[in-house]
Amino acid sequence: MFFASDNGGPAHPSVLDALARANEGHTSAYGAEPAMARVRDRLREVFEAPQAAVYLVATGTAANALALATMANPWDTVFCTAMAHINEDECNAPEFYSGGAKLTLVGDRDAKMDPQALRAAIAAEESRGVHGPQRGPVSITNATEKGTVYTPSEIADLSGVARDFGLQTHLDGARFANALVALDCTPAEMTWRAGVDAVSFGGTKNGLMGAEAVILFDPEKAWEFELRRKRGAHLFSKHRYLSAQMEAYLADDLWLELARRANATCAHLAEGLQQQDSVEFLHEPAANIIFARFPRRLHKRLLDAGAYYYVWDGDPHTGDPDAPLTARLVCDWSIGITGADAFLSAMQG
Amino acid sequence: MFFASDNGGPAHPSVLDALARANEGHTSAYGAEPAMARVRDRLREVFEAPQAAVYLVATGTAANALALATMANPWDTVFCTAMAHINEDECNAPEFYSGGAKLTLVGDRDAKMDPQALRAAIAAEESRGVHGPQRGPVSITNATEKGTVYTPSEIADLSGVARDFGLQTHLDGARFANALVALDCTPAEMTWRAGVDAVSFGGTKNGLMGAEAVILFDPEKAWEFELRRKRGAHLFSKHRYLSAQMEAYLADDLWLELARRANATCAHLAEGLQQQDSVEFLHEPAANIIFARFPRRLHKRLLDAGAYYYVWDGDPHTGDPDAPLTARLVCDWSIGITGADAFLSAMQG
Amino acid sequence: MFFASDNGGPAHPSVLDALARANEGHTSAYGAEPAMARVRDRLREVFEAPQAAVYLVATGTAANALALATMANPWDTVFCTAMAHINEDECNAPEFYSGGAKLTLVGDRDAKMDPQALRAAIAAEESRGVHGPQRGPVSITNATEKGTVYTPSEIADLSGVARDFGLQTHLDGARFANALVALDCTPAEMTWRAGVDAVSFGGTKNGLMGAEAVILFDPEKAWEFELRRKRGAHLFSKHRYLSAQMEAYLADDLWLELARRANATCAHLAEGLQQQDSVEFLHEPAANIIFARFPRRLHKRLLDAGAYYYVWDGDPHTGDPDAPLTARLVCDWSIGITGADAFLSAMQG
Amino acid sequence: MFFASDNGGPAHPSVLDALARANEGHTSAYGAEPAMARVRDRLREVFEAPQAAVYLVATGTAANALALATMANPWDTVFCTAMAHINEDECNAPEFYSGGAKLTLVGDRDAKMDPQALRAAIAAEESRGVHGPQRGPVSITNATEKGTVYTPSEIADLSGVARDFGLQTHLDGARFANALVALDCTPAEMTWRAGVDAVSFGGTKNGLMGAEAVILFDPEKAWEFELRRKRGAHLFSKHRYLSAQMEAYLADDLWLELARRANATCAHLAEGLQQQDSVEFLHEPAANIIFARFPRRLHKRLLDAGAYYYVWDGDPHTGDPDAPLTARLVCDWSIGITGADAFLSAMQG
Repeated sequence: MFFASDNGGPAHPSVLDALARANEGHTSAYGAEPAMARVRDRLREVFEAPQAAVYLVATGTAANALALATMANPWDTVFCTAMAHINEDECNAPEFYSGGAKLTLVGDRDAKMDPQALRAAIAAEESRGVHGPQRGPVSITNATEKGTVYTPSEIADLSGVARDFGLQTHLDGARFANALVALDCTPAEMTWRAGVDAVSFGGTKNGLMGAEAVILFDPEKAWEFELRRKRGAHLFSKHRYLSAQMEAYLADDLWLELARRANATCAHLAEGLQQQDSVEFLHEPAANIIFARFPRRLHKRLLDAGAYYYVWDGDPHTGDPDAPLTARLVCDWSIGITGADAFLSAMQG
Repeated sequence: MFFASDNGGPAHPSVLDALARANEGHTSAYGAEPAMARVRDRLREVFEAPQAAVYLVATGTAANALALATMANPWDTVFCTAMAHINEDECNAPEFYSGGAKLTLVGDRDAKMDPQALRAAIAAEESRGVHGPQRGPVSITNATEKGTVYTPSEIADLSGVARDFGLQTHLDGARFANALVALDCTPAEMTWRAGVDAVSFGGTKNGLMGAEAVILFDPEKAWEFELRRKRGAHLFSKHRYLSAQMEAYLADDLWLELARRANATCAHLAEGLQQQDSVEFLHEPAANIIFARFPRRLHKRLLDAGAYYYVWDGDPHTGDPDAPLTARLVCDWSIGITGADAFLSAMQG
Repeated sequence: MFFASDNGGPAHPSVLDALARANEGHTSAYGAEPAMARVRDRLREVFEAPQAAVYLVATGTAANALALATMANPWDTVFCTAMAHINEDECNAPEFYSGGAKLTLVGDRDAKMDPQALRAAIAAEESRGVHGPQRGPVSITNATEKGTVYTPSEIADLSGVARDFGLQTHLDGARFANALVALDCTPAEMTWRAGVDAVSFGGTKNGLMGAEAVILFDPEKAWEFELRRKRGAHLFSKHRYLSAQMEAYLADDLWLELARRANATCAHLAEGLQQQDSVEFLHEPAANIIFARFPRRLHKRLLDAGAYYYVWDGDPHTGDPDAPLTARLVCDWSIGITGADAFLSAMQG
Repeated sequence: MFFASDNGGPAHPSVLDALARANEGHTSAYGAEPAMARVRDRLREVFEAPQAAVYLVATGTAANALALATMANPWDTVFCTAMAHINEDECNAPEFYSGGAKLTLVGDRDAKMDPQALRAAIAAEESRGVHGPQRGPVSITNATEKGTVYTPSEIADLSGVARDFGLQTHLDGARFANALVALDCTPAEMTWRAGVDAVSFGGTKNGLMGAEAVILFDPEKAWEFELRRKRGAHLFSKHRYLSAQMEAYLADDLWLELARRANATCAHLAEGLQQQDSVEFLHEPAANIIFARFPRRLHKRLLDAGAYYYVWDGDPHTGDPDAPLTARLVCDWSIGITGADAFLSAMQG
């Protein structure tokens, strides 16, 4: 009963098969292997973006930090929400990779950036000439760190604000697939058609071992990105094992299938939780994450039954059985309905 | 007939098996999985260094840059040879990770740093107080980028010079195993007993997909290293796939077995080349790399037969069939005696 | 009628005299001139801190950025208010000098950091291990950017919170003297006795041409500071012209005298403004800065009379004569009662 | 008898007069004062470069590091000589400001870079794609750190090599005036007409207190430079004291007059030294620096008489009175013929 994170689950078996197939004989290194050309073509097709520059790295933080460093000068500030992964969970990697850019925190609702707040935050950097940080790109996450989802039109609102000031928009898509299947739209609709300039296209949380793509819709800075990736020590010599993962991910729409499973598990779990009087949601779950509040006695019961998840808020060590805790429950592709049911049973005692 | 690099070959099948075994169910992320504890213990045992801090990353450049950044201040200079991988092939990653440290190039013989030259180079940074770069660590590579090998006593000579000035020594062991089996000594003898403070312990070039260990014999800066790794975006969430690789590598001394194969293939190839009048070596091959000079007509013959390798020196496009070229021939574990023989046959035409 | 900033006024004549006296013959460079030893001794005496490390630089941003970089690791976050000079007016210099540290914005009241908010902000960085930024120093400004003043006991409250978490406290004293004479306390009381670890001791805004001291009460990182200063290109070769300025500043308590003049001018101006019905203060002025709100017709009148100041809030170009504007009025040492009276007359028309 | 450095001498009296004149009333800060506009115009006139971007900073290291950071990407390498100030005496400031660029050391003769060696060094970075550092600007110094001087045609040779590879050329002109009067050419001839793209135009060593100009002949990156200057904490608030210095320097060709004095003193000293059998020059002095070799007994005599200079080579503490030492003797504008004669007398005992 592991609901702590979608990085705790296994890779899909077809990924292992792909690695085994890729493991034949000698091949060119550093992304010059034929599989990478196929991955590039396939991602351009998936995104309906024939000119896009496409690169692979092994971690989501690398994808974000490298993309943002390519988009932001060291004297810029990046606009994001307080709970953005780039702000909270990357140990200053964006600051490091950009050479010292700042992050400006913009107001949000359930981790979704508010367009008015964005406009105000950008405008506030308006009039200090060389003295203040300069306006840099906007970075949003879909699905968000709270499991909510931006619609294409909401994304377009935010990128529209950015564009009003001549700024670019980056999308942290660590859970890109979960958002996409929740929205039932196309990758193009969720990105460049909605004004997004660059995407961190996640795979690791959704069934890969460790592979993420960076997609720059405008390839103008492609070479700069390549140099940044190498300088950041993120260019794999045996790159074939990254491209094999990504190729398997895209084949037969495996990526969508796995996200559908994760979201369905989450919906099933949410439905079960909703039927319990003592459980309430911080906000409606939309993808594969639930933030649920319930009394400590339920928490204790779950713990005893071997459930793993993060307590987001509240003191799990209090003696009061009715004290409310907030739990973050994340469903990865491998948990399945059975896994959700096991959790619900354990909760009911 | 691929002799271009030892990063062009496949991973050993047992690595794939290990990945498959690691791919069961949920586990803790970010190195907290049980397999990492086993890897740590095993590497401490292998190095006879029970206190050592042990970490995994996916690329050799990450291992080097993170280790050196932990050892060098931004205002220091790192002493290395001109052909050191950190100088020639990492696109300023050491400068980036250290926050702007410099590299001072020290004289060498066949890529082996000269102790007198090292002493002179360190001494030359002596007397300018705050004005010049400050003395930082010494970094050497074993086996070297030219395929030569330092003996433990030669390493001790260099680390002794460093120690005379209160400086530390880093060993880039991208081909650690190839050096070790060539020397027939223990990991401890080649490292901390010879005065080495930190090692980049390579696996990728010797049969893994992408996994390297960093070993800090003095664990004092272990936490700093962990923060640098995370900030550099090199901490894997699904870290189990790194530890599985390394565990397979160390199991039943696979790493030594693979290095022995690579070196034996290289020795066989060298022997065959030596029997040809028109071939000469730049220096005696000692591990799994040969630098050989031969006339262009042999090169053309090899090319036509489908051989891949780097032309290190000389103009491969000249019309003169007798013009000498220098080729770098690298043998990975998978080539085998048959592969070497194929090359030799092709050469003989 | 220049109330735009205290960096718009002239240097005090005795500073020029001191430069002329310092301009005799040859002397050692880079701070080794005898005058610097005298400055160091004098500042240690002024601060009752015989062990303190004392350095000079030419800009306040250099003082802040170098001090903070010495106190914060690249993976740390510095706690400050939103309107802190280090956040708003240094174009990411703290991020640059620290190698990518972050600033976490803490709630304030009239630019004075709130201790509860500080405690909450520090606590919030508590539990993410290697993932989040690490807790770094607290930085406060006295007098603040809004012209309010922390008492020693208020400073002790904040540094006490910092210390509870093992963190250090930095004081941006660009207007150190203005705060000190407002509080009528000693430099020691306002700094190390109140738990401050390092001070940017301003001179430029208070009658110098361009000279600021950095005082590290614990000299442990003195050498690191010196290297950072040189590497940042802030070590003056003809350093005698910095030490001459600072020596003149401290001689006969000129620095206190100039701050008293500035504050008295400000108090006189505030009194005059208070007598006008249509003027109100955002908060009580405590040092040499006033934030006053008045209708646009007064603003227009002042502008026409040649007054210079920043409009902090409101649209100065509106047609409505009653629309309120907020003006920031800064008094430097050279304006005097006459200057304030001129402003008040102009306002009355 | 101070021959240790041209940063040990006083500022010219007219510089103090200019500061006193600049010290009247209030004025705009940060370079918006009218004097800066005049300085800009005057330097454009002096350099016959009406489009050039012109900025002031207080230290030569700041001028060099900011100029180079504007010209070089973090993944580039800057080509310079081993004794270049940027390599030897700036504590990694170029690496810091550029975000981690490297310096590649190019062969020289008496500190003058050799065009063949430059071509070879640039060519050597040719073929490693993303792996090696990328080719960045060439940086030369005139007059050099050894007191030799490049002719415009020699500069054109070097910048021509750079241009062959699409690279820019930076001139460290810490002793620009000394070179110019030695060559009897125009600033334009020594810079942009000879292919130089950016100049650090020194004033501090030649009679100012602390003021240097950076001149970018192509203003394309002017705004970037301004942001880098501010972020580096090198933008003076009371900027009028920088512009006043530079204005005085350029008025009535004071800068040329002072350099002529320094060079004439040096020539006189050289002539006197040449007449002594036991003195020999490492190379012909061309500007205001002499490297002279003489026996320790002469050194002892000079020391006893109160002469100050650096011993470049040899052991000054040896007991052997005939052991040769190499002294670096630098003449600033204020020493004069009398000062040189005093040295010569002291030497003769």
